[in-house]
Amino acid sequence: MTIRIGVIGTGAIGADHARRINQTLTGGKVVAVTDVNREQAEAVVDRLQLDAKVYDNGHDLIAAADVDAVLVTSWGPTHEEFVVAAIKAGKYVFCEKPLATTAQGCFNIVEAEQAAGKRLVQVGFMRPYDSGYRQLKACIDAGDIGEPLMIHAAHRNPTVPERYITEMAIHDTLIHELDVFRWLLNDDYKSAQVIFPRKTRYTHSQLADPQIVLLETVKGTRIDVEVFVNCQYGYDIQCSVVGEEGIANLPEPQSLLMRKGAKLSNEILMDWKDRFIAAYDVELQDFLDGCNAGQMRGASSWDGLAAAVAADACVKAQQTGQIEAIEMPPRPAFYA
Amino acid sequence: MTIRIGVIGTGAIGADHARRINQTLTGGKVVAVTDVNREQAEAVVDRLQLDAKVYDNGHDLIAAADVDAVLVTSWGPTHEEFVVAAIKAGKYVFCEKPLATTAQGCFNIVEAEQAAGKRLVQVGFMRPYDSGYRQLKACIDAGDIGEPLMIHAAHRNPTVPERYITEMAIHDTLIHELDVFRWLLNDDYKSAQVIFPRKTRYTHSQLADPQIVLLETVKGTRIDVEVFVNCQYGYDIQCSVVGEEGIANLPEPQSLLMRKGAKLSNEILMDWKDRFIAAYDVELQDFLDGCNAGQMRGASSWDGLAAAVAADACVKAQQTGQIEAIEMPPRPAFYA
Amino acid sequence: MTIRIGVIGTGAIGADHARRINQTLTGGKVVAVTDVNREQAEAVVDRLQLDAKVYDNGHDLIAAADVDAVLVTSWGPTHEEFVVAAIKAGKYVFCEKPLATTAQGCFNIVEAEQAAGKRLVQVGFMRPYDSGYRQLKACIDAGDIGEPLMIHAAHRNPTVPERYITEMAIHDTLIHELDVFRWLLNDDYKSAQVIFPRKTRYTHSQLADPQIVLLETVKGTRIDVEVFVNCQYGYDIQCSVVGEEGIANLPEPQSLLMRKGAKLSNEILMDWKDRFIAAYDVELQDFLDGCNAGQMRGASSWDGLAAAVAADACVKAQQTGQIEAIEMPPRPAFYA
Amino acid sequence: MTIRIGVIGTGAIGADHARRINQTLTGGKVVAVTDVNREQAEAVVDRLQLDAKVYDNGHDLIAAADVDAVLVTSWGPTHEEFVVAAIKAGKYVFCEKPLATTAQGCFNIVEAEQAAGKRLVQVGFMRPYDSGYRQLKACIDAGDIGEPLMIHAAHRNPTVPERYITEMAIHDTLIHELDVFRWLLNDDYKSAQVIFPRKTRYTHSQLADPQIVLLETVKGTRIDVEVFVNCQYGYDIQCSVVGEEGIANLPEPQSLLMRKGAKLSNEILMDWKDRFIAAYDVELQDFLDGCNAGQMRGASSWDGLAAAVAADACVKAQQTGQIEAIEMPPRPAFYA
Repeated sequence: MTIRIGVIGTGAIGADHARRINQTLTGGKVVAVTDVNREQAEAVVDRLQLDAKVYDNGHDLIAAADVDAVLVTSWGPTHEEFVVAAIKAGKYVFCEKPLATTAQGCFNIVEAEQAAGKRLVQVGFMRPYDSGYRQLKACIDAGDIGEPLMIHAAHRNPTVPERYITEMAIHDTLIHELDVFRWLLNDDYKSAQVIFPRKTRYTHSQLADPQIVLLETVKGTRIDVEVFVNCQYGYDIQCSVVGEEGIANLPEPQSLLMRKGAKLSNEILMDWKDRFIAAYDVELQDFLDGCNAGQMRGASSWDGLAAAVAADACVKAQQTGQIEAIEMPPRPAFYA
Repeated sequence: MTIRIGVIGTGAIGADHARRINQTLTGGKVVAVTDVNREQAEAVVDRLQLDAKVYDNGHDLIAAADVDAVLVTSWGPTHEEFVVAAIKAGKYVFCEKPLATTAQGCFNIVEAEQAAGKRLVQVGFMRPYDSGYRQLKACIDAGDIGEPLMIHAAHRNPTVPERYITEMAIHDTLIHELDVFRWLLNDDYKSAQVIFPRKTRYTHSQLADPQIVLLETVKGTRIDVEVFVNCQYGYDIQCSVVGEEGIANLPEPQSLLMRKGAKLSNEILMDWKDRFIAAYDVELQDFLDGCNAGQMRGASSWDGLAAAVAADACVKAQQTGQIEAIEMPPRPAFYA
Repeated sequence: MTIRIGVIGTGAIGADHARRINQTLTGGKVVAVTDVNREQAEAVVDRLQLDAKVYDNGHDLIAAADVDAVLVTSWGPTHEEFVVAAIKAGKYVFCEKPLATTAQGCFNIVEAEQAAGKRLVQVGFMRPYDSGYRQLKACIDAGDIGEPLMIHAAHRNPTVPERYITEMAIHDTLIHELDVFRWLLNDDYKSAQVIFPRKTRYTHSQLADPQIVLLETVKGTRIDVEVFVNCQYGYDIQCSVVGEEGIANLPEPQSLLMRKGAKLSNEILMDWKDRFIAAYDVELQDFLDGCNAGQMRGASSWDGLAAAVAADACVKAQQTGQIEAIEMPPRPAFYA
Repeated sequence: MTIRIGVIGTGAIGADHARRINQTLTGGKVVAVTDVNREQAEAVVDRLQLDAKVYDNGHDLIAAADVDAVLVTSWGPTHEEFVVAAIKAGKYVFCEKPLATTAQGCFNIVEAEQAAGKRLVQVGFMRPYDSGYRQLKACIDAGDIGEPLMIHAAHRNPTVPERYITEMAIHDTLIHELDVFRWLLNDDYKSAQVIFPRKTRYTHSQLADPQIVLLETVKGTRIDVEVFVNCQYGYDIQCSVVGEEGIANLPEPQSLLMRKGAKLSNEILMDWKDRFIAAYDVELQDFLDGCNAGQMRGASSWDGLAAAVAADACVKAQQTGQIEAIEMPPRPAFYA
C-alpha cells in the first residue's frame, strides 16, 4: 500500500523529505503540503513535480481524508501543536527534532499518544539509522566488548555563526548524542555536569567553546562528550565505547586513503550535511514501512521527552557548574 | 513512468534483482518472468508476491506488449540469444555478466545494437556503482594524483570449490577488474601476461593459485592484479592507483575499529556477497532511470566486448606464459 | 669523561639500569653497588660482570671518593634519605619514581637542592624520553595545533594483582600522566576530580576500576584520563591533545599491519615493560650526558614535587568525590 | 674488549660511522682514519675529537698493528681492493655497499675470504637491522602467515637529480630490496624482468621512471617492486608479504596521527636519511659485537655477491625487456 503523506513545513528539511519520499524511497507519496509561506509550498510542489494539494494550514492538512500520515518539519515552536493534532486525528506522524521546545511540550505529546492508545509518533533522530552507529550497537548488544562502562565522544564543527550561543551547544548539538547514547546503551541518564576548558580564540563572546559534558547513566556508565563547534579542522563525530573486554569505535566516514604531499591521509568532512546523509533515507523509509506495518519503530515520543529532559539538565549544569540530576518520570509500559 | 520489467532466469541473481525492483528501487515493476525451470519461476512469483505473468520462454516474454525492458539473468550460454532478441524487439535490456560467453558473441550483440541505431544494452558490471570506486574515479578525473601511471590491485577470496579451475580466475574473477580498470582509467588494454607464483597448499590440482596478471594499457599505464582465491583470511578487494603526484587507494569497507584481545583491528569481510551489496541497488536503479530517460548509462555492450577480448588474451597468456596482445577493433563512434 | 656510578638498590630496575650503563649506554660505568640484601647485590655484580665494589649501605656508597654519581633504585620509602645524602655530598643523583613517598619528602629534597646551590637531581620519569611523546611535544611547541585546550588520555593495563587498591591508580599508574602532561603543556595543575564509572566484573572488592580523573591546569586546559587497569585487552597508553586548530594523537607503538583471520589488525602490547623500553635508554643516557655536561636536564626534583602534590589531591578527590584544589608553592627561580 | 677501528674513507657515511662508534655505540673506538683527501680526514678527526692517527692510505691503515678492524667507506671502485687487503691481514672488515662494483669483484672477495678460512666481512646492508623488517621476518619465520608466496613492494623517492639514470634504479635503489628479500625469505633469486610504465612528467630524458621489477625466487615466490624515484610525495618504502594464510605489511614509520585541515593524516618522510637512521646504529653495533665475539653476523660477502649478481641480471632485463636468469654458483658450505 502506498502511504499518502502530508508535509507541514516545506523549508529545507521538509522539501528534502518530500523529494526523498517521491524519488528515492518506496511505499509513500506526498499528496499534501503546507507552509506558513504558501508561495514556498507551491514552489516546492512545482520544483519536485509533486502531485500534491497545497493546504492553507497544518490543521486542514491533518484533517484531509486522503492524508494517511503527516510529516512535521515546520518551525520548532509549532511542533507540539501539530503532533498532538495528528495524534488526535489518529494519523502517524514523523516529527523532526525537537519533538517540542520544552520538556512539558514533549510530555503533553506523550500523554496524548497514550490517550490515543497506540504509538503514532516517530521523532526525527537519524543517528540510530547510521550504518556506523548500527554496527556499534550490534557489537555492544552481541556482548563483543562485555558490559559498556564508559563512552568517550566528541561532536565537532568547523565553525558556527555568531548567533550560536553557549546553551545551543546542548539543544542544537549535544541533543543528537543525548538521543543516540540512550539507544546505544539501552539506558537512561541520571546526572549531568558541564566543564568549560579555556576558550578557543576562534569563538566569540557569547559562546563558551569548547565544552565537556559529563553524563552518568542509571546503570552507572559514564559518558564524556567534547562539544567543540569552532574546531576549524572538520565536522567530526567520534564515539568510543569502552567495555569490560574491549573497545569499539564508531567508524570514520569512508574515504580514499591518499599518499600525497608528505601525508598519508584520509579526508575529514567539513560539512555536517554530508555526514549522515544516507541515514536520512533509512530513517524515513523506516517510517513509511512502519506506517505500512501499522507499527512505529524509530525514536518514540518517550525518547523525544527523555532527550528534552536531559538537555534541560545539561543547560542547568552549564549555569550552575554543579552536578545536576536528570529526573525522568517512570517509563510507562506503553513505551516499554 | 513505471518501467515494466520482464526477467529471464529466476535463479539467485534474477530473483534478487526482481526483489530489488519491486521492494527497494523506484520506477520499475516486474510484470513478467520465465525460467527453464518453470516451477522455480512460479515459486519466485509467489515468494516475492509479484504481480507478474510466468512465460514459457524468453522469446515470448521479450515479445510481450506489456514488457518495456528485459533482465537477462539466465545461464551464461543463453545470454547472447536473448540480448539480441531484445535488441531486435527494440527493448532495453540489462544483461548480467558475461554479456556472451565468447568475444564473438559479444561482437554479434554490438553489431545488432548498432543496426538497431540506439544503445539498448546495459551489462551487469556493478563495481563502477560502488561508492569507493566512484570516489577513486572522481579523484583521478579531478587530477588529484596527476596522470595515473600504475595500478596495484588484488582480488582475494577465502576459498573456492573444487570445480573452480585455473582459467576461471580470469573469466569469473578477474573479469570485474578488467571492466572496472577501463572505466577508472578511460583507457583500453594493449597486452597481458600471467605469472604463476608457487601454489598455496590450500589449492587443488586443477587450480594454479595465486596468479598475478600484468596488463598494459594503450596509454602505457601498467597494472598488476593478484588473483588469490584461496587466501583463507577474507574476501578482499584492493586497488591502489599510483599517479604522478600521489597515490589513491580504494577505501576499505566501513567497519568498527576494535581494541580487543591484544589487537587493534577492523573486520575483513569473508563473504563476497556483502562487499558490493549496495552497488547492486545503485546499478539497477541506474538502469531503470536510464530506461525512463531513454538513455543507457552503465557498461555498454562495447564494454562487455572489451572485457571479453581482454579475458581471452589473459587466458591465452596463462597458457603460453608469454606477453599476449589484446586487440580490439576500432571503437565505433556509436560507442564514443 | 666516564662517570663512575654507584647504584643503591639492585632489584629489577636497579640491575637493569646497571646493565644499561655498562652494556648499552656511553659515558658511564658502574663502580659501586649496595642493597639491603647484600647477596643480591653481589649476584648482580657477578651476573653483569661489573667491576664494582659492594658497599654495606647507601651512605657509604654515596661517600665513596670514586663514586661520581648515584642511582637511587631502592625501596620507595628510602628514596628521600639517599637523595638528600647525595645532594649533601654534592653528587648527581638519578632517583627512580617516586622521588619521595610524601609531598613533604619531595619538598625536603627541593629545599636541600636549593641549599646546595645547584641542580643535582634527575627524577626517573621516562615518558618525556619516549619518541612518541617527544613528537607530540614538538608538534605542540611548534604551534601546529594552536593552543592546547584539552587532553583526552587513557592508561590501561590488562590486569593488576589483588594487592592493587583504589588509590594505587593514582600513585602507581596516573603518576606518569601527572608528570608528562605538565611537561607536554608547560603548565601546572589547579584542580582534580575523580569519577567512578560502574566497576568492571574483572576487578576486586578493594579496587574501583575504571576511574576517570579530571584535571584543570592553571592556563585552563582540561584533561580527562581514563585509568582502567583490568581492561583485559592490552597495555594501552592513549593521549590526544586537542588544540585550537587541530588534534595530535600519540602514535601507537610500531607493529606489523596484518591481514589474517578476517581481521585487518595491528598488535597491541600486553606487557607494560615493552611499551617504553627504548625510553629508559634515552633517559639514563641523558642523565649520564647531564653529569658529563655538569647540568641536569630531565625531570627535576621540583617536577617530582609537583607530581606528588597533584597525586595527593587526586587521592583526596577519590575520597571526597569533590573538585579538589591542587596547590603548589610558587616556583623558585632556581627551577625556572 | 674495545675494538680499535680504522676508517678508510671519511666522507659523509665514513664520518657518520666514526661518530657512531665513538659517541653512541659501545665496544669500539676509532684509532685510525684515511681518505684520498687527507685534509678531510684531518678535519673529521678534529671535528669529532677522535684520538686517531691519520694514515696516508688504506693499506698502511690496514697494516697498522693497533687497528683491530676496518671500515671501508671509500669510493665504491676501491672497495674490493681494501676489503681483500683487510682479509689478507686477517682483520674484520665492514664494507659499505656495494661490496664491489662488479659481481666478479664480489666473487674475488668471496674467494679471498674462503682462503682465509674464516668469515671476516660484513656488508653494509642496513635494512635487516630495521625494527620493522625484523618484525616482518619474525612473523614469517614463526609461520604466522604460512609459507610466503608473493611480495608486493615499492621503493619511492620524492625526486632524484639529473645524473640519476635508468640503471641506477637497480644499482642504487633496488639493491636494498635485492638484499633484504633474500634475508626475509631465506631464498635465492632465479629470474628477473623489468616493466616500464609510461614515464612520469617529473623525470628526465635519461631516466625511465617508474619501473616495475619482477623477481622469481628458487622456491617460486614472486616479487614485484615498484621503483619510482620522482614520486613527489615522499620517501616511501612499502613491503607486503602475502603468505598462504595471511599478509604482513612492513610498518609505516611512527608518526603522530593528526586531525587538521580537513585531513586525518600521518606524516610521510621526505628525506631517505631519516627512514633507517636507527638501523645504522644497530647494524654497526652488531659489527662491533661480532668482532668482540669473533663471529660476523650481518650480511656476508656471499650476500654481497648475491645482490650484485641479481642486480646485473636486472640491468640486463632493463635492456632486453626479457625474463633474464639470475645464476648464482652453488653456495659453499662456508657460507651456510
